[in-house]
Amino acid sequence: MSDKQSAAVFKAMDQFKIELPSWGFADTGTRFGKFFQDAAASTPEEKFHDAGLVHKLTGACPTVAVHVLWDFPADRTPADIAKIARKNGVKIGAINPNVFQDQAYKLGSFCSPDPKARKMALDHTLDSVAIAKETGSKLISMWLADGTNYPGQDNILRRKHDLEAAFKKIHKAMASNQTLLVEYKPFEPAFYHTDIADWGMAYLLAKAAGPRAKVLVDTGHHLQGTNIEHIVAVLLDEGMLGGFHFNDRKYADDDLTLSSIDPYAVFRIFDQILQHQFDTGKKTDIAYMVDQSHNLKPKLEAMVQTVEEAQKLYAKAALVDRKALAQAQKKGDIVGAERILRNAYETDVRHLLADWRLEKNLPAEPLEELRSSGIIARLGKERAAARKTRGESQSGSFA
Amino acid sequence: MSDKQSAAVFKAMDQFKIELPSWGFADTGTRFGKFFQDAAASTPEEKFHDAGLVHKLTGACPTVAVHVLWDFPADRTPADIAKIARKNGVKIGAINPNVFQDQAYKLGSFCSPDPKARKMALDHTLDSVAIAKETGSKLISMWLADGTNYPGQDNILRRKHDLEAAFKKIHKAMASNQTLLVEYKPFEPAFYHTDIADWGMAYLLAKAAGPRAKVLVDTGHHLQGTNIEHIVAVLLDEGMLGGFHFNDRKYADDDLTLSSIDPYAVFRIFDQILQHQFDTGKKTDIAYMVDQSHNLKPKLEAMVQTVEEAQKLYAKAALVDRKALAQAQKKGDIVGAERILRNAYETDVRHLLADWRLEKNLPAEPLEELRSSGIIARLGKERAAARKTRGESQSGSFA
Amino acid sequence: MSDKQSAAVFKAMDQFKIELPSWGFADTGTRFGKFFQDAAASTPEEKFHDAGLVHKLTGACPTVAVHVLWDFPADRTPADIAKIARKNGVKIGAINPNVFQDQAYKLGSFCSPDPKARKMALDHTLDSVAIAKETGSKLISMWLADGTNYPGQDNILRRKHDLEAAFKKIHKAMASNQTLLVEYKPFEPAFYHTDIADWGMAYLLAKAAGPRAKVLVDTGHHLQGTNIEHIVAVLLDEGMLGGFHFNDRKYADDDLTLSSIDPYAVFRIFDQILQHQFDTGKKTDIAYMVDQSHNLKPKLEAMVQTVEEAQKLYAKAALVDRKALAQAQKKGDIVGAERILRNAYETDVRHLLADWRLEKNLPAEPLEELRSSGIIARLGKERAAARKTRGESQSGSFA
Amino acid sequence: MSDKQSAAVFKAMDQFKIELPSWGFADTGTRFGKFFQDAAASTPEEKFHDAGLVHKLTGACPTVAVHVLWDFPADRTPADIAKIARKNGVKIGAINPNVFQDQAYKLGSFCSPDPKARKMALDHTLDSVAIAKETGSKLISMWLADGTNYPGQDNILRRKHDLEAAFKKIHKAMASNQTLLVEYKPFEPAFYHTDIADWGMAYLLAKAAGPRAKVLVDTGHHLQGTNIEHIVAVLLDEGMLGGFHFNDRKYADDDLTLSSIDPYAVFRIFDQILQHQFDTGKKTDIAYMVDQSHNLKPKLEAMVQTVEEAQKLYAKAALVDRKALAQAQKKGDIVGAERILRNAYETDVRHLLADWRLEKNLPAEPLEELRSSGIIARLGKERAAARKTRGESQSGSFA
Repeated sequence: MSDKQSAAVFKAMDQFKIELPSWGFADTGTRFGKFFQDAAASTPEEKFHDAGLVHKLTGACPTVAVHVLWDFPADRTPADIAKIARKNGVKIGAINPNVFQDQAYKLGSFCSPDPKARKMALDHTLDSVAIAKETGSKLISMWLADGTNYPGQDNILRRKHDLEAAFKKIHKAMASNQTLLVEYKPFEPAFYHTDIADWGMAYLLAKAAGPRAKVLVDTGHHLQGTNIEHIVAVLLDEGMLGGFHFNDRKYADDDLTLSSIDPYAVFRIFDQILQHQFDTGKKTDIAYMVDQSHNLKPKLEAMVQTVEEAQKLYAKAALVDRKALAQAQKKGDIVGAERILRNAYETDVRHLLADWRLEKNLPAEPLEELRSSGIIARLGKERAAARKTRGESQSGSFA
Repeated sequence: MSDKQSAAVFKAMDQFKIELPSWGFADTGTRFGKFFQDAAASTPEEKFHDAGLVHKLTGACPTVAVHVLWDFPADRTPADIAKIARKNGVKIGAINPNVFQDQAYKLGSFCSPDPKARKMALDHTLDSVAIAKETGSKLISMWLADGTNYPGQDNILRRKHDLEAAFKKIHKAMASNQTLLVEYKPFEPAFYHTDIADWGMAYLLAKAAGPRAKVLVDTGHHLQGTNIEHIVAVLLDEGMLGGFHFNDRKYADDDLTLSSIDPYAVFRIFDQILQHQFDTGKKTDIAYMVDQSHNLKPKLEAMVQTVEEAQKLYAKAALVDRKALAQAQKKGDIVGAERILRNAYETDVRHLLADWRLEKNLPAEPLEELRSSGIIARLGKERAAARKTRGESQSGSFA
Repeated sequence: MSDKQSAAVFKAMDQFKIELPSWGFADTGTRFGKFFQDAAASTPEEKFHDAGLVHKLTGACPTVAVHVLWDFPADRTPADIAKIARKNGVKIGAINPNVFQDQAYKLGSFCSPDPKARKMALDHTLDSVAIAKETGSKLISMWLADGTNYPGQDNILRRKHDLEAAFKKIHKAMASNQTLLVEYKPFEPAFYHTDIADWGMAYLLAKAAGPRAKVLVDTGHHLQGTNIEHIVAVLLDEGMLGGFHFNDRKYADDDLTLSSIDPYAVFRIFDQILQHQFDTGKKTDIAYMVDQSHNLKPKLEAMVQTVEEAQKLYAKAALVDRKALAQAQKKGDIVGAERILRNAYETDVRHLLADWRLEKNLPAEPLEELRSSGIIARLGKERAAARKTRGESQSGSFA
Repeated sequence: MSDKQSAAVFKAMDQFKIELPSWGFADTGTRFGKFFQDAAASTPEEKFHDAGLVHKLTGACPTVAVHVLWDFPADRTPADIAKIARKNGVKIGAINPNVFQDQAYKLGSFCSPDPKARKMALDHTLDSVAIAKETGSKLISMWLADGTNYPGQDNILRRKHDLEAAFKKIHKAMASNQTLLVEYKPFEPAFYHTDIADWGMAYLLAKAAGPRAKVLVDTGHHLQGTNIEHIVAVLLDEGMLGGFHFNDRKYADDDLTLSSIDPYAVFRIFDQILQHQFDTGKKTDIAYMVDQSHNLKPKLEAMVQTVEEAQKLYAKAALVDRKALAQAQKKGDIVGAERILRNAYETDVRHLLADWRLEKNLPAEPLEELRSSGIIARLGKERAAARKTRGESQSGSFA
């Protein structure tokens, strides 16, 4: 590899940051049950500890996304939580309101036929905006479970209008440096229609909300076959790409760890972003976030592995020879253009990333470091004991 | 409609029985949470009461499928449970072992790399076979959640061999009048590979198990686009169709109520079954069962609606003019053959089914009867009060 | 059925018109070969004859969509073609430029990296706009095959920009009473990325083109699972639904005849349109068009069958009790609301449509009339003889 | 990389052979048209020349699959064709009967309702078996287009029975050292049901045919989401894997070049094969074949690129540390096991393969060699001239 290429990778690694979700350290599961891990985090302290540890190991995760309902218990102020974050060397990232879990949301939140549910969702989200302001967070990240399960169940356009009205109010309540991220998903938990089903609907809703609303792309929230990097390119071109929730999937919203099923697809997303940067000379502000439900992998291992994977694939994308690519494309040299992309993808960047880490005083192989450290076993013991002390049981199997 | 056609429908209705699942009356949900219903059944008494009520209203549901883990609490004997069923006018149907919920099954049941988990699954299933004998049930219905989430996680063929060995033992333990039903599913809760992923794998496993093992088709357990009626025809021809779990879906295993998304597809399944009967002159013994997770619809309403839908579509399939169809097919008259099928499908059989019901002293419109009866509201009050008395709360939202 | 309901259906039938494609009467096939029909139409005279016959039988197809490349041979003027149409009792409908067939379009048309190809596509389309003006057509219907087959093959956003520039020019060239319909398709013949891949991209392109550009929904141009009626509702709400290409599919863009695979899905599309009309009190101007490739069914039979199917499903949608539906939706009565929809769908409207046809002096059963008339056999003989006279062979198998 | 690893890769490369299809050098297209290449091969001489050239460049393609209809013109004997192959340094590989192109097969071949079509298909296939014997080919490779487009069109089980009867006769006609390969495909060109729709149906048909019938896996012939490597493992375990048709796809049967969309998925197929070899200590005889329709890439470039890709991914699979993998799997160390697989996949083997080629007196970079040689341009000129001389035009656009 040439020095120029090495330098490009180092520069890319210096820039690339990816946000971790606090809920990624807690027990999760499927509708068929949860499998528990002793070392899973339960309290805000534990979650930020774990996020801080991942940042210490990788140097790439300075912020932590939080879920208002789960991370801001009644007995703590937002300032308390922000303090815990700081203590662990990280900051509060995106604020995620939760408008799907309460029994009131059975028929939807902002889209419910029940005005009380709609008001409850709005109030909670406005509270979340306030928390964002208090904790210095610039991102309000909205994912709705709203939708219907049966044809005829509800009036689709009445729902759309109520949704737009609510998002306008939320947007109005935000500070001028805050961004509203609008996430879409084709199905689950709604199985007939989902109110924000695809990027087009998220785009329209963001446009209706106001100028500081953008679209959030969750890589697992697409129908089979969707060309995600194409959507990414279009949103970049329209100035409407706000950020990503990264994970991988083979079937539906499987929430597996990033790149575990299709690494080339993740590479192609990063490639479109760096191509846009190359073509426009501008760097778009994109919130890269992890959102996975690795319910079998050990939480901390899964997270460090994920960050390593993201770094490798971003580094490979930084290796694409964009001038040569443009020439091959112009000539219609399909095989030549493809090979330029593949040459970057097939380059083994592991040693290079190790060098970059050593330069930054980070462990050369973060996952190996974690696995050989005995930390997870220790945390498992401590947290199992602490849960016992608190009288908590890990339960939640579905029956 | 001709008298001959009416008679065909009446005869079809006399024969068509569909089994209800005990768990279909209890609260269910998605991985994002459960929404509770006051009238949801919790105890065996409540579940069999509800199943009995559906049978009283429809005359089509004499048996109830049970889940060993959920329906045979430690403080009751199988005989107790069978007695509760009889008291409510129904019988115990298929016995469903549960080998997915215990923490021991994190990496699989019969396929786990851990021999202890494999033994636990086998022991539980052999216990279930014993329960089946005690309760007079002729069906052991096996659905496994076994699979892996990540490439490389486990050795696929080691798993296959352990699975085959276990099923041989289970088959050996069964009585000579019992049938082992082998269910398949492409994904969820496993997201990389599922050990019994499709009908072909279920077929091979059933063949390996022994002559009394057959394949069970869950209509929601297929990849998008699968032609289910084709699989049904092939299994019928091979003498390997054991039964169905009916539900509907638009995306994945959505578990919506039967025919709510694609009624013509359900009709085509019934059509293949009646076509096979017509062509061979023999009636295959098929276990029709409902398996849905109607977590928003009121449980009892959903179940009665489901039975009505199944009856309507089965009745329509009984109206197909099979002699005329054979002639059109032989001539290669595509439009003519298709129209014969569609003429049956488009016929409105609702009045005819009402007539049949009145003849059987059943309410002409079971769902209307239920909805106007006030039963659900009454049960809701009683059961909410009973749960309070027992000190139970309806909880289970995922966090 | 009440008199009011019958009247609603009659009124719906009076209003419902569906355009036939001239190419729907010609031989078509798959990439594996074409199967020929003696009665297939080759010349403009034959195509308009057949379209006119379908209109005579059904009274529902006053216009015919034309393909510029195939229907305007060098030796005829647009006025000639319009005259042939009139002679057969129909008018020229949507004008479809063809920018995918010429060897120049190997790498795309408006999106090609080759400026000559882009210019050729634009020139042809501007010619098509001129033809539209000459023939009195108000619709320019654009489907592009543009896309790439391999990652890296071309610069996605360069293509987007060239596409937008071209559509602005086309829009500018149109008369003020003409509409530009922008069709989307996820894949085929491009298999990596398609430049107008989904409704969102079609929407953006139409907005970029100008105020008289709308989105065209081809029912077969969606990924598996897409909720098409939801897209239809959103486009209606945004004032951006221009029209439909109707067909059915089970897998990809199978181009089967309308409703042959999933009639309930087509009903739900009509339902959203009539719901929007009910809610707004306004009737949106929508171009309903057939676009199928029924390469096995006899062409004329397939077309008459298609029109009958469309009428039946539109009539059923007109039967939905929208006031009762709104009440059930407001109460969150899922089962009740669904049943209102299903009651309409399950109603057998065949006799009612026969009555409407008799009132209009049309054959009560158009398809039966056609099949028993011997017309197709006669046309087959005549056209086979004519082809012989012209020295043409029906060929085109792929090798 | 250790010497042991290098040796493993060299050994793998010595063993890995992949068959090229004669039709892969000819013009192909989609139903929307063909785009022509001057250098595309038309005659047997040209096709075998090109296949021989690819073998000369890569050393990995000693055999060529042939299509009976296209490669054995009436004026040549099978011996003539075999001689042309030998002259170009290659041998005749799998013999592919063609039972889909003739007008007689409109409603199917072996499954047609017309006994004449069924007989014609059988006669042609028996002729193909005879050709296989004459040319020394050990493989009869059967792909059928049989299926129906509309529900009700034909009797599915009548078709199944006729198909089984025919395959028994074909099997009987084969020599004892010949193998019958049974290919499956879910859809296209049939769009409602395909008679051999999945591996389970191919398995049953092969079993019915006789002991020398095996299943052929075309990587593009699966529904979205199918875990192909799982099917491969199951077929290996059952002794029923006959071979592969390699290509890649993003949506349907896109027939893109191998690994162009998802290289990791191809690696996982090779991994299952080498895992089976490791676990059983036996090497299964598998026919690796290319079957693509790279209608935009230059034919020869696409083929050499494909062989290089297959070699790279096979080499990576040979690098998996199978002992360590088994240990990690046994412990349930998900992350550890996955990393072992990924370490092999992420290793850049390009230099190693160049070394292996140089050792074999092959060009280190076959595709570069081809692209810089000017051969394709020369062939283009020669062949264009030859076509002109023969009075042939390259035509075939669909209209």
